[in-house]
Amino acid sequence: MTQIKKIGLFTSGGDAPGMNAAIRAVVRSAQYYNIEVIGIRRGYEGMINGEFIPMDVKSVANIIQRGGTILKTARSEQFRTPEGRRLAYDQLKRNEIDGLVAIGGDGTFTGARIFGNEFDVPVVGLPGTIDNDLYGTDFTIGYDTAINTVIDAVDKIRDTAESHDRVFIVEVMGRDCGLIALRTGIASGAEAIMIPETKRDLDALMDKLENGRKDKSSKIVIVAEGEEAGNAFEIGHQVKEKFPNYDTRVSILGHIQRGGKPTCMDRVLASRIGVAAVEALRDGHRNEMIGIVHNEISYTPFEHACKHNVEINANFLKIVEILSI
Amino acid sequence: MTQIKKIGLFTSGGDAPGMNAAIRAVVRSAQYYNIEVIGIRRGYEGMINGEFIPMDVKSVANIIQRGGTILKTARSEQFRTPEGRRLAYDQLKRNEIDGLVAIGGDGTFTGARIFGNEFDVPVVGLPGTIDNDLYGTDFTIGYDTAINTVIDAVDKIRDTAESHDRVFIVEVMGRDCGLIALRTGIASGAEAIMIPETKRDLDALMDKLENGRKDKSSKIVIVAEGEEAGNAFEIGHQVKEKFPNYDTRVSILGHIQRGGKPTCMDRVLASRIGVAAVEALRDGHRNEMIGIVHNEISYTPFEHACKHNVEINANFLKIVEILSI
Amino acid sequence: MTQIKKIGLFTSGGDAPGMNAAIRAVVRSAQYYNIEVIGIRRGYEGMINGEFIPMDVKSVANIIQRGGTILKTARSEQFRTPEGRRLAYDQLKRNEIDGLVAIGGDGTFTGARIFGNEFDVPVVGLPGTIDNDLYGTDFTIGYDTAINTVIDAVDKIRDTAESHDRVFIVEVMGRDCGLIALRTGIASGAEAIMIPETKRDLDALMDKLENGRKDKSSKIVIVAEGEEAGNAFEIGHQVKEKFPNYDTRVSILGHIQRGGKPTCMDRVLASRIGVAAVEALRDGHRNEMIGIVHNEISYTPFEHACKHNVEINANFLKIVEILSI
Amino acid sequence: MTQIKKIGLFTSGGDAPGMNAAIRAVVRSAQYYNIEVIGIRRGYEGMINGEFIPMDVKSVANIIQRGGTILKTARSEQFRTPEGRRLAYDQLKRNEIDGLVAIGGDGTFTGARIFGNEFDVPVVGLPGTIDNDLYGTDFTIGYDTAINTVIDAVDKIRDTAESHDRVFIVEVMGRDCGLIALRTGIASGAEAIMIPETKRDLDALMDKLENGRKDKSSKIVIVAEGEEAGNAFEIGHQVKEKFPNYDTRVSILGHIQRGGKPTCMDRVLASRIGVAAVEALRDGHRNEMIGIVHNEISYTPFEHACKHNVEINANFLKIVEILSI
Repeated sequence: MTQIKKIGLFTSGGDAPGMNAAIRAVVRSAQYYNIEVIGIRRGYEGMINGEFIPMDVKSVANIIQRGGTILKTARSEQFRTPEGRRLAYDQLKRNEIDGLVAIGGDGTFTGARIFGNEFDVPVVGLPGTIDNDLYGTDFTIGYDTAINTVIDAVDKIRDTAESHDRVFIVEVMGRDCGLIALRTGIASGAEAIMIPETKRDLDALMDKLENGRKDKSSKIVIVAEGEEAGNAFEIGHQVKEKFPNYDTRVSILGHIQRGGKPTCMDRVLASRIGVAAVEALRDGHRNEMIGIVHNEISYTPFEHACKHNVEINANFLKIVEILSI
Repeated sequence: MTQIKKIGLFTSGGDAPGMNAAIRAVVRSAQYYNIEVIGIRRGYEGMINGEFIPMDVKSVANIIQRGGTILKTARSEQFRTPEGRRLAYDQLKRNEIDGLVAIGGDGTFTGARIFGNEFDVPVVGLPGTIDNDLYGTDFTIGYDTAINTVIDAVDKIRDTAESHDRVFIVEVMGRDCGLIALRTGIASGAEAIMIPETKRDLDALMDKLENGRKDKSSKIVIVAEGEEAGNAFEIGHQVKEKFPNYDTRVSILGHIQRGGKPTCMDRVLASRIGVAAVEALRDGHRNEMIGIVHNEISYTPFEHACKHNVEINANFLKIVEILSI
Repeated sequence: MTQIKKIGLFTSGGDAPGMNAAIRAVVRSAQYYNIEVIGIRRGYEGMINGEFIPMDVKSVANIIQRGGTILKTARSEQFRTPEGRRLAYDQLKRNEIDGLVAIGGDGTFTGARIFGNEFDVPVVGLPGTIDNDLYGTDFTIGYDTAINTVIDAVDKIRDTAESHDRVFIVEVMGRDCGLIALRTGIASGAEAIMIPETKRDLDALMDKLENGRKDKSSKIVIVAEGEEAGNAFEIGHQVKEKFPNYDTRVSILGHIQRGGKPTCMDRVLASRIGVAAVEALRDGHRNEMIGIVHNEISYTPFEHACKHNVEINANFLKIVEILSI
Repeated sequence: MTQIKKIGLFTSGGDAPGMNAAIRAVVRSAQYYNIEVIGIRRGYEGMINGEFIPMDVKSVANIIQRGGTILKTARSEQFRTPEGRRLAYDQLKRNEIDGLVAIGGDGTFTGARIFGNEFDVPVVGLPGTIDNDLYGTDFTIGYDTAINTVIDAVDKIRDTAESHDRVFIVEVMGRDCGLIALRTGIASGAEAIMIPETKRDLDALMDKLENGRKDKSSKIVIVAEGEEAGNAFEIGHQVKEKFPNYDTRVSILGHIQRGGKPTCMDRVLASRIGVAAVEALRDGHRNEMIGIVHNEISYTPFEHACKHNVEINANFLKIVEILSI
């Protein structure tokens, strides 16, 4: 194990609130430990193209509260090829970078795992995605902010739904994962939640709408975008067909869920694991995602951190069932 | 002119933030002037069906900050017929209601005008719509809140747009009216705005995108939903075709624009004209919308308050042109 | 163990955002399990005075997003006496209440413990306090909202501090407990944090201010209100004396920290443990606080749930040290 | 009249949200008109010290939504002296600056007026202050944001006040001017407002509290900080003495009122008058403040723009009287 002197830092995949707080934590803790930091813009694509910028404590002043990522992010087709990764490696060597911190999600870590196996560059990852769909951390950076953005939006929709006695089908993000839908469904007092994991069929929803309390003036259904029963428009269409007397509307929350100031918890999470990432590299960790499990720093090999290992807490679904009466 | 002893109060058309503040102001100022208030639920529909509830100062406690309308709102087909309006009139007489305050928009005032001409019930109106598309008031109740909701959303979208170097086509409300698009376009620093009033063609937009500053990493286009060039999806489609190398995304903000806590200005506006409405009825006004023009209470006959009289300030469009360089 | 048929529900002590979400969860889950709920207004004081109101699913409609507590809260001197508690017990018996759910903090549970030992009424508690100072739950209801309110405020103060190159001493709540100061200090990028638990002396602060980076244009110090070194005004006074050339200001955030819409996490926490409280009473639990530890429902005897058992994670203090360079 | 080729731009006095939007508008419209812009940091102090930075469209990218001022602000004792102003003038000449745009309040314009009379540099001003205390514009930049910050805070305080049946004395900013107190008092549903302009005595407040509706569970009194009857603590003290059975609390909102993202209206105002300022300099205006009166650009000589010419709309006070019953 050789001592790390200069690390490369980048964000990759979809942006998430709190990524800047993580960038700040990595840069400042590296400086604390006398390690240089090179910011790599646009993820793996920028690594291949050599978009490198030296960073110090001032580079990250006043960014802890900003959404998005100052290092920008991109998807890279080239990095999927051995030739692309070789180019990336050459750039790192040319710049004497001897360690990497990758902030991103499942796809980011897949790339990092392959790269880390091919070349002698230690890589550690920080979970940055609003979907919270990674194994090895209780929460990912950005999830807490995203679910608060969703409930702010649904609270607003509820105002209109109540005023007009409407049924609203609200689609939230989470391509293969219902964790955004689940917590926001509980927190917004939704009448029903449809998520990919439970393959809940439309009949159950119709039954819920039909046999629920008659005196309720509005009903909100939260749908995860990846739901196999169909997207929100399709579900809305079927609800309208079955209940033509309902005033049914569809709302796709869309990209507002990715932006905004990070919440306190996202900033604290990003700060803690940002520091831990630098310490992990110093201590010889490699090919691991740094997360927090039960309030303690945890280290999960990239091959286990992938999304299909995340389970839905069945208790949450029962909570929705009980509270939506 | 007979003295008003009991007024009926209702909200109609789309809900708007600040309607509850207006309801509170009408109820409290009526009580101040020793006038009874009957709340009519669900607008004209509830008037026909006799959904009447007596209101006092306590009925409106702690609602000034709540979005939506506690009196609910609905559209009424029946009220469009002479028979429906006769039924409504009978209900009013039966309950000894001798004046009406209608909170709503263009459609609401059209109904009020016809009703006020047919029957001997004085009606005054309060402009409550997020579209700001009424003649006779500088601002309508709900507009200020809606434009702040829009810029909060676009600020979030900008975070993502900046992180990914994207073009975003964002559709905001305003069916025949671009006033939401206009102010939010300026306030969100949009690169271009497309509104119905200027029939701005897509070529101009393409030209703007093509010839704008090359070093800009993100571009936001704000589109009013009623824009004749096509809705946001159509525009997004055409931008993608012409500029396949742009990462172009579409976001329809939708119903979140109607809800939420009213802003300070919406609450103050609603409070001022709510009081003025009661005073107007006492003073013998009828068939008029109460608004504020140049910081003074103004009275506009319903037939003039309609939306096609609203003009777009050309100066605003120039501001966008200048500032989006 | 007899079957619970009717429970009394109350909030006590300082109000916290999410208490209404907890009230809703208790009422709805009780109804789900065919248990009646009596709301007791104004905590123990209302119990003694018989301020009882029957609650059903409609009583708690549309409150999940509201701050404060619809059951109101109060402190009761009378309940500290055996006579007062006897009166309370008599009221419960008269109303056939055979179980209690108490939402509050340390003082509330002390009262509940004594009462539960004196009389044959099972009591379970829900942790509702912004201070997060209870043993037996990772988080208390209200804490997450309060820390987000604090960072919103400090973000605003930072705008001014940056514009004027100022030092700001910001006092946050937390009488004997620095947990609000600790997380918000990290999340707001504070230069220093002063909390009761570490008895950090003023000399260390002065040293930090004196020897920190010279090019920083603003400095924020977060102080917990109970800090023994003196309150924020006292600290501000001493900083001004030692560094007369600094533009030093003091801001006491005060009561805004208690109010506002609960965050998603606070609503989910309140919903989960609200349901669990009713299930706990059904299952024979008594004299226990219901919390969540490591994402699982936990049951802690009231005598252990008190605040002096909460420890500060030393790692958090190191994070501040590292990131404030 | 010679053509303006290079303007100096600065912010001075207390910072206000929207100053950055104004800076952006000045820089971009100057570029649009082929005028160079030099940013002057720290107001008059920086002008004397030559803290000059060239600005272009990229210097102001992504700042429209940020609170504070990127040019920073300061108070300058030196500029009050003829020698100081001479030094400032020399710096301007050395840098070939032939026009100035000053963003600030009363004090800023006093300085600008004297300087503009002494030297041949045309100066125009933009009203940037949260107090809205300038004659010659309906609103100042920052006022709309500040009043929304206040009502957010008071809404939170109301949650607690309602839960505990408390009287809250809330102090808002506005040293000699009650305009913040006035609109926020109406918008927050305050029971009473105390502002400097009306010299409302404490007896009237006591009478209001004593004889108001008995069934109100909470009472909010909004006090402008400059109120002659005493500050909020003094008023709170007297209320406690007279009504020992009330649970009376005091909250000083303080510096949070200056920061935060500007509202839509503040951004639009700043954008419009920022453009107008550059156009005014081009058109030969000098020694004038640029504002908006009745939705049109207005030009007011600095000597008239001062604060003692602002009048309180008596109608607003009556609104509070009526609605607080």
